[in-house]
Amino acid sequence: MQKHKTTIITLTTDFGLSDEYVGVVKGVIYAKTSAARIVDLTHAIPPYDVERAAYLIASAYLYFPAGTIHLVVVDPGVGGSRDIILVQTEKHLFLAPDNGVLEPIIKSNSTAKAFRVTNSALFLNPPSPTFHGRDIFAPVAAFLAEGAEPKTVGPEVPIAQVTKLPVRQPVIDLTQKRINGAVINIDHFGNIITNIHQTDVEQIPSCPKGGSYSLSLKGKSFQPLGRSYQDVPAGNPLILFNSRNYLEIAVNQGNAARMFKIQPGDPVLLTKE
Amino acid sequence: MQKHKTTIITLTTDFGLSDEYVGVVKGVIYAKTSAARIVDLTHAIPPYDVERAAYLIASAYLYFPAGTIHLVVVDPGVGGSRDIILVQTEKHLFLAPDNGVLEPIIKSNSTAKAFRVTNSALFLNPPSPTFHGRDIFAPVAAFLAEGAEPKTVGPEVPIAQVTKLPVRQPVIDLTQKRINGAVINIDHFGNIITNIHQTDVEQIPSCPKGGSYSLSLKGKSFQPLGRSYQDVPAGNPLILFNSRNYLEIAVNQGNAARMFKIQPGDPVLLTKE
Amino acid sequence: MQKHKTTIITLTTDFGLSDEYVGVVKGVIYAKTSAARIVDLTHAIPPYDVERAAYLIASAYLYFPAGTIHLVVVDPGVGGSRDIILVQTEKHLFLAPDNGVLEPIIKSNSTAKAFRVTNSALFLNPPSPTFHGRDIFAPVAAFLAEGAEPKTVGPEVPIAQVTKLPVRQPVIDLTQKRINGAVINIDHFGNIITNIHQTDVEQIPSCPKGGSYSLSLKGKSFQPLGRSYQDVPAGNPLILFNSRNYLEIAVNQGNAARMFKIQPGDPVLLTKE
Repeated sequence: MQKHKTTIITLTTDFGLSDEYVGVVKGVIYAKTSAARIVDLTHAIPPYDVERAAYLIASAYLYFPAGTIHLVVVDPGVGGSRDIILVQTEKHLFLAPDNGVLEPIIKSNSTAKAFRVTNSALFLNPPSPTFHGRDIFAPVAAFLAEGAEPKTVGPEVPIAQVTKLPVRQPVIDLTQKRINGAVINIDHFGNIITNIHQTDVEQIPSCPKGGSYSLSLKGKSFQPLGRSYQDVPAGNPLILFNSRNYLEIAVNQGNAARMFKIQPGDPVLLTKE
Repeated sequence: MQKHKTTIITLTTDFGLSDEYVGVVKGVIYAKTSAARIVDLTHAIPPYDVERAAYLIASAYLYFPAGTIHLVVVDPGVGGSRDIILVQTEKHLFLAPDNGVLEPIIKSNSTAKAFRVTNSALFLNPPSPTFHGRDIFAPVAAFLAEGAEPKTVGPEVPIAQVTKLPVRQPVIDLTQKRINGAVINIDHFGNIITNIHQTDVEQIPSCPKGGSYSLSLKGKSFQPLGRSYQDVPAGNPLILFNSRNYLEIAVNQGNAARMFKIQPGDPVLLTKE
Repeated sequence: MQKHKTTIITLTTDFGLSDEYVGVVKGVIYAKTSAARIVDLTHAIPPYDVERAAYLIASAYLYFPAGTIHLVVVDPGVGGSRDIILVQTEKHLFLAPDNGVLEPIIKSNSTAKAFRVTNSALFLNPPSPTFHGRDIFAPVAAFLAEGAEPKTVGPEVPIAQVTKLPVRQPVIDLTQKRINGAVINIDHFGNIITNIHQTDVEQIPSCPKGGSYSLSLKGKSFQPLGRSYQDVPAGNPLILFNSRNYLEIAVNQGNAARMFKIQPGDPVLLTKE
């Protein structure tokens, strides 16, 4: 991290956009540093939905330049005994409550380091027990954007001590050539996104990327596997690996989740035919 | 377009704000250039509603400084055979799928030029067939923001070859002194916006700006023609030319669309009394 | 205010995010100055709700750096006879319709000065009578961001002449040790925010910060007074002073307003037990 350069700070929260909460977080950051440029990832995480935030930041961070600081403030335990952690990967920094929201980041960055944020000299004084986003996360992020070393926010802690999230993982049965997974997200377009990653599917023998699958969901069987929504006529369903490389069910120019009445958490079964 | 200057990039999409999609488009842009400043026009275009996006960008672009790059990513054909085009007007650049969304821009800029975006060296590699916003539009916009010439993104094509949008145009009857139009938008305040422009009305003889009109909609007749919402008491309807110079029906401090149960597409009839 | 420095401009409006209205306000500002950085406070003020905007800007402005310009455009009287005012406090500028929306700012800044915005040379020409945000507020804000003195936008007027908002104030009964107040806001998390400030409560004898209160609302009595949401188990209600120091009813990791069917305006009664 160098000084005198613009650092991007991304924000991922469940604050919504109807109150002043997001705005004052930005105000505190800009009051402390002119070296930051803030980008909203989303403020529409459902309140307290740590798992949703975990998937979202893991899907997004790699598209940002090296040196970016990611704030993830979905924090059902605010004001209680949970810690705040700073995770450093090779190219990015992540600042979040220690509630498991960074587990996918840690899992895919074997050299990640963690620091407990304890340097209260950096906080707004005294921090409100109900709004650490404004009083702790924002000033600490501004301090890091100015080029401060991670260790200056607090002591390094073993990465294994960081809280783990009970993430729903798909179960791969190599013998039966099937994968049991779940719907983890419905996106804005109604695309039904599962937790089955392309690398999961590629573990199944004779199940190459272009193979013939069937994905069952709520008693209905979905095919074919396409590359793009245009592989089927408008209004028709298909399955494909989405832009995050997870298996999804979509309807070309339609809303799959509404059409098939699907919710996050619904189980899915992938079979090789 | 000069180098070493901040260039504004506007974003108009149907991506919504609940996923990370808009954020990663910004991440890709900022990872490729520090010369850009991004402004959201809206991300709430109804999914796949090309006509709505076409009206919106046409209403907005003139208020931005010369050199601004406008990304319009409402793209029901993503991943299929549709092209991506760059349209250059005297002062602005527009990057969009070639699906008609730029027709109002081309129509009102007689010297506009078009380029087919084919220089795949600029794209994220390989582009996902489901997310060209991130993998094609964003890096190409960043490249242009750095000062690149339009022709470097791909070959110029005759402007007449750009896809046309079947836009609902009002029908003007000079003899009967009437105009058949349609509701094209309901805005956030419930204002009912028609496709009848002030220049359409001025074509009718003895129908000057201050004349006496009546606008019929769903069997109800609306008057008077005012200049400002304050020309009628709070809660009362009126018609006026809005800030885009289109005829609209509004209710002072109220929601006209909800009060009169109006939808986009409803026909309207303007008559001179 | 110095030249050649980035000035923050905050935006608080009832424009929503589905039209291009917010975007073109930003376009006009950036077309007139490169010295500004714009921060959205919210665009989700309910249409024409001046009181809600007044509370929001009063809660937010102090977190922004000195020199920040705050635009508050909730303007049911746009195009009518209401004035536009610029209020200058020790560290901030506020630009708003003269409809009372700045009353809490003026009340808490005894040295505030007011100026009537009349210098039409600064406006987009001619201003639309329906969109002063774009045609008056934006260019005037850009002009101020460039370092212009407040008096250049129009003549100073006595602060007492600025329109007052009939704000619902709590009624404190020192003898009975009770406060009659009201719900003034439901936030994104469903927290029920009252107009009873911590300084109101501290006026009651033997009613220190840590005392034993009961807050009655719709026939239900709420306790205890906590410091953080974690002071009660998940799903349980409590009362606390929120991050703005107003008394609120919350449910730990829940939605209090939905659980107890509360609306803004509902009366509350605080009693000392």
